[in-house]
Amino acid sequence: MSKPKVIVVPYTRKISRVFSPADWERLHSIADVVWGRDDPIPLAEFEAALPEAVAIVHGEWMYGGAETLRKAPKLRAILEVMGAHSHPGFDHEYCFDHRIRVLSCAPAFALQVAEMALGMALAAARDIALGDRLFRANREQYSSAGNAGTFLLSGKTVGLVGFGSIARQLKSLLAPFGCRLLAYDPWQPAASLRAQGCEPVELARLMSEARVIFVTAVPTIQNKAMLNRDLLERITPGSVLVLISRAHVVDFEVLTDLVLQGRFKAAIDVFPEEPAPPDLPIRQAEQAILSAHRAGAVPEGLLEIGRMVVDDLEAILAGLPPQRMALAQPELVNRLDPAGERVSASYRSREK
Amino acid sequence: MSKPKVIVVPYTRKISRVFSPADWERLHSIADVVWGRDDPIPLAEFEAALPEAVAIVHGEWMYGGAETLRKAPKLRAILEVMGAHSHPGFDHEYCFDHRIRVLSCAPAFALQVAEMALGMALAAARDIALGDRLFRANREQYSSAGNAGTFLLSGKTVGLVGFGSIARQLKSLLAPFGCRLLAYDPWQPAASLRAQGCEPVELARLMSEARVIFVTAVPTIQNKAMLNRDLLERITPGSVLVLISRAHVVDFEVLTDLVLQGRFKAAIDVFPEEPAPPDLPIRQAEQAILSAHRAGAVPEGLLEIGRMVVDDLEAILAGLPPQRMALAQPELVNRLDPAGERVSASYRSREK
Amino acid sequence: MSKPKVIVVPYTRKISRVFSPADWERLHSIADVVWGRDDPIPLAEFEAALPEAVAIVHGEWMYGGAETLRKAPKLRAILEVMGAHSHPGFDHEYCFDHRIRVLSCAPAFALQVAEMALGMALAAARDIALGDRLFRANREQYSSAGNAGTFLLSGKTVGLVGFGSIARQLKSLLAPFGCRLLAYDPWQPAASLRAQGCEPVELARLMSEARVIFVTAVPTIQNKAMLNRDLLERITPGSVLVLISRAHVVDFEVLTDLVLQGRFKAAIDVFPEEPAPPDLPIRQAEQAILSAHRAGAVPEGLLEIGRMVVDDLEAILAGLPPQRMALAQPELVNRLDPAGERVSASYRSREK
Amino acid sequence: MSKPKVIVVPYTRKISRVFSPADWERLHSIADVVWGRDDPIPLAEFEAALPEAVAIVHGEWMYGGAETLRKAPKLRAILEVMGAHSHPGFDHEYCFDHRIRVLSCAPAFALQVAEMALGMALAAARDIALGDRLFRANREQYSSAGNAGTFLLSGKTVGLVGFGSIARQLKSLLAPFGCRLLAYDPWQPAASLRAQGCEPVELARLMSEARVIFVTAVPTIQNKAMLNRDLLERITPGSVLVLISRAHVVDFEVLTDLVLQGRFKAAIDVFPEEPAPPDLPIRQAEQAILSAHRAGAVPEGLLEIGRMVVDDLEAILAGLPPQRMALAQPELVNRLDPAGERVSASYRSREK
Repeated sequence: MSKPKVIVVPYTRKISRVFSPADWERLHSIADVVWGRDDPIPLAEFEAALPEAVAIVHGEWMYGGAETLRKAPKLRAILEVMGAHSHPGFDHEYCFDHRIRVLSCAPAFALQVAEMALGMALAAARDIALGDRLFRANREQYSSAGNAGTFLLSGKTVGLVGFGSIARQLKSLLAPFGCRLLAYDPWQPAASLRAQGCEPVELARLMSEARVIFVTAVPTIQNKAMLNRDLLERITPGSVLVLISRAHVVDFEVLTDLVLQGRFKAAIDVFPEEPAPPDLPIRQAEQAILSAHRAGAVPEGLLEIGRMVVDDLEAILAGLPPQRMALAQPELVNRLDPAGERVSASYRSREK
Repeated sequence: MSKPKVIVVPYTRKISRVFSPADWERLHSIADVVWGRDDPIPLAEFEAALPEAVAIVHGEWMYGGAETLRKAPKLRAILEVMGAHSHPGFDHEYCFDHRIRVLSCAPAFALQVAEMALGMALAAARDIALGDRLFRANREQYSSAGNAGTFLLSGKTVGLVGFGSIARQLKSLLAPFGCRLLAYDPWQPAASLRAQGCEPVELARLMSEARVIFVTAVPTIQNKAMLNRDLLERITPGSVLVLISRAHVVDFEVLTDLVLQGRFKAAIDVFPEEPAPPDLPIRQAEQAILSAHRAGAVPEGLLEIGRMVVDDLEAILAGLPPQRMALAQPELVNRLDPAGERVSASYRSREK
Repeated sequence: MSKPKVIVVPYTRKISRVFSPADWERLHSIADVVWGRDDPIPLAEFEAALPEAVAIVHGEWMYGGAETLRKAPKLRAILEVMGAHSHPGFDHEYCFDHRIRVLSCAPAFALQVAEMALGMALAAARDIALGDRLFRANREQYSSAGNAGTFLLSGKTVGLVGFGSIARQLKSLLAPFGCRLLAYDPWQPAASLRAQGCEPVELARLMSEARVIFVTAVPTIQNKAMLNRDLLERITPGSVLVLISRAHVVDFEVLTDLVLQGRFKAAIDVFPEEPAPPDLPIRQAEQAILSAHRAGAVPEGLLEIGRMVVDDLEAILAGLPPQRMALAQPELVNRLDPAGERVSASYRSREK
Repeated sequence: MSKPKVIVVPYTRKISRVFSPADWERLHSIADVVWGRDDPIPLAEFEAALPEAVAIVHGEWMYGGAETLRKAPKLRAILEVMGAHSHPGFDHEYCFDHRIRVLSCAPAFALQVAEMALGMALAAARDIALGDRLFRANREQYSSAGNAGTFLLSGKTVGLVGFGSIARQLKSLLAPFGCRLLAYDPWQPAASLRAQGCEPVELARLMSEARVIFVTAVPTIQNKAMLNRDLLERITPGSVLVLISRAHVVDFEVLTDLVLQGRFKAAIDVFPEEPAPPDLPIRQAEQAILSAHRAGAVPEGLLEIGRMVVDDLEAILAGLPPQRMALAQPELVNRLDPAGERVSASYRSREK
């Protein structure tokens, strides 16, 4: 019996980076893989495969809208491997109307990003990167003298801006610290946040009360520069802000300004433009920890993408619901802001 | 009724650094405090208080041996506030023979040191300090390009060299990471380590198998440079060694050599000499994170010392066993190496 | 502005049992509630409300198929409050085709059922109910004499037959016991079970290796009497089987036979017929704990149903995806067996 | 080289019940075992072994006071295997004065007693034993009708009367239930209880506020019938009292009276007299769960005693401090009430 056809074009991801050899083999054992190479698929070949395709695994969506999907009457799922929160040109409505599941690998990043966020928070609270720089400059200060402004994470109030898969994973890593958790997420009713062990609060209160703030919100058309001067100025002196999702969410100039003034500490993994310009002022901030969009690109972590894709394909092809990737929700897809993702595209393309 | 007499000389600690106002008041409400100032007590005053003293709280022991203690027939406990693992000249045997409890505040450091150790481990695994340095030098690499050699802590094998209060606290912080824990501690039988959820192993195996190694062992007369070339060379390439207790335990030259070669990463909080000489070669190691003996000196963390002291005095004066500080054990006190502590003394004295 | 219309007919549930006053008020504050009484809604009234109805909250579905739903063009969600796994006559396909979310309150039972399952497992492992019966008959045996065949849960192998919301909650309650967890769930790929911390196994192995077996599977057209003689005989002597979902899943006669023989212990909350006939042989089994379908009907627990319904309505009416109830999955709804639910209907109707 | 001499007389325990074959062998590999049989040692033989004995492992102490111990100049530890809280005639003071560690196996019972206490609490909260009795009498009530008065443990306030090894273990098993923990323990300062995650409270408040009360306190000369009418009447209607340590602590007649009145539920493992008289009124109480002092006598659980004994002997003979058994504290030994233990002696003697 022939196996179901699955079109696989991870581009701009490379296959060997996201699929372990075992997962790649597992994929072939359950599906008749069309293409399955690192470079983009020629459009003709893509279209030729549509009539029989049961699923499409893709990196960037470059295949148009409903007119394309209409040629794939057997299509049951579209699985993306970038973790991008939106793909310009993609027609979600068609999929919702035709029971095609649209799945994102975003949850594959939760663990590695949460570990990085915790590491950056501890590094900021304890001046680990700063202390290391001072040491190399022969200006280190020992014991108490070098600990002014440091603090413990245990027992502190933590603010989670956005409560998606990253924040949930972070919550699990934070459990032994016994922190009080405040959460702000306009996409979840208060009751839902409470049921997950957080105190739902308005942003103004979160910013004022939390000693460590994790910004994990995805970019939407509503949250551009949501963390504005008014909110950033509410942060209590000496606290820590960890910016780990997208710079889109914060007024980066104000953030830079306040950190340069020494009002609070910041650990920053994402920037308004990437690569960041050589003269970006935040590069000079003593109280900042800077990281080049590295939270979600640990080699072993990327293999989680392939594992999730094959796990969910396995379920789908067996006539079961997928369990691991994130299912696109009609209410949310139109709120995502592809512009908030754009910065990534530039350096991603360089990975080719 | 008069309150019991307690001699309190935290020197070289400062009272305001280790006792919160509330704890200091609590202390006075249960005891008739003799001295209770920052500077050393004049010997005459000390000796005059001995006949009635029920407890002594001290920073450095400068009061001689049995001949002194003999003058304090009512003495039931001696509580030290440095967290030093040994006090030269102190006569433990006399205390053991006369049911005087000797208590150390060492456990007060467990939480802050464990948080720092975890922070340093994550920072090393994810190149947080290195990435920050590169960023400031305009040499940062984005995404996957900047993640060569980084790895996740979750699911890894962790080695604990020494399984005392720091390691136990670390074990609790590590719980959500689901690590396999190997432990080496010659002061605890294998069964005891197993009962605490660790796999007891020989050092050679620990060094070979662990992806992250935490050195938490106190300095003893037996473990000077215990982590020698043979053991350090067993560390698998790209792993992380966190040196958080005392440099005494490791052959520091070999460690430096191997880290400079890039064989593995190291996060180092303690040095053979402190302050470290300006030309200490480890200062140049790309793969190191350097910290100036700062793990156990967070302002709020130091107040835990006073809290423990007053908690245990409260118990003792109420005729109950102390519960929070570490009780000196006859089998162990003679194994501690005061020389391993000496480095600290130099900069501590500068805190005066 | 007028509030969105929501038809609310919890029958055969009573409103005061599933909605706290606060939730009932919250419901009215966000919706224009149609009906909202304990008894069934007259069909005419129901149909009159359809054209404007945005959601329907119901206990038993008595409103026909597509021809009815077609009259409700604004309908976005149907929320059921029985926790029944299927509603005969309901047209899921129409809902899937028209983006109407079908939501079940089944997860509202997870916590109370999991607590009961753990309580029954401990009671069986330690002969708590049996010991109590013997005590009342003046036949109790003290200490070791009364503990033959008892065992600890900590460190044992536990088998979960079905890994849905109950099993997941049970897994959380079992965490401190440090059990090894085996799971069998044909609706989830092995990888998914593994990602949730279980070892996916075949039923035969689960039955042979687990010391405590929890049967939590919902009744499907495929699992009628799935736990047959061959599988039940694999249970190791003296182990415990907790039957907590539906009797449908097990060959009840064989189960009775083996427990009467004393081959293993059983804790049973559900029966092939309810009320169970007075002469049902299991009533005589010394090694059984019997409970009258009581795991999911704790007064405070039922209020979780109303809380979930209002939480999710709040989300839906705010244009957000629901977060708390279980969403019907196209692949699974046709596999559920309404006959497996039927036993409940009889006594439920008596609650009116 | 000859091995150190250890006298081993577990009587009235049986060797095969407390030592696994592996532990028994391990014991012989590290020590020259004197006696090592089930029956009592002849006094002459005991005395002959004293001059060389390094440790004594005993069940009941029948060897007199200081005059005996004086004959054992090499003695470093006395380890008891009953878990009794006091041994009449034993001279603790001599041991404290001569650095002989007195160790009790009481902690070996913590896990099995805590599991039983949790099982009994859940059984009481959910009427598991009562429901089972009704079922066997063909009087069972289904679903909601059978759940009047049942409640969930999750999120409730729990009171711990006594916070020793059992309560600590119980605290760990209760963690996933998210309960608020109140603790009363006159042997521990408030700060110590707080540091362990409990709210220290007076008994009156504990009894009034807790929905589930665990009585885990050991019998002392001060707590005889401490839970008197005034305190027992404070229990809120429908709550659960689990009596798991010793009946000594409670006014049993008042307890019986209130439970017979249906004021609250009780789960009782210990009785003022054991075996309990056939006409003891509590035998008739519908709202009680009765267990014949069975919490600490699970076969596999008893082997933990031998494991702890050998683990600690291993440490002691290696010149290390013991880690697993409970060390007698000078402040506490004189407060224990041997009379509170006496009930056990009677049925224990029957185990011979």
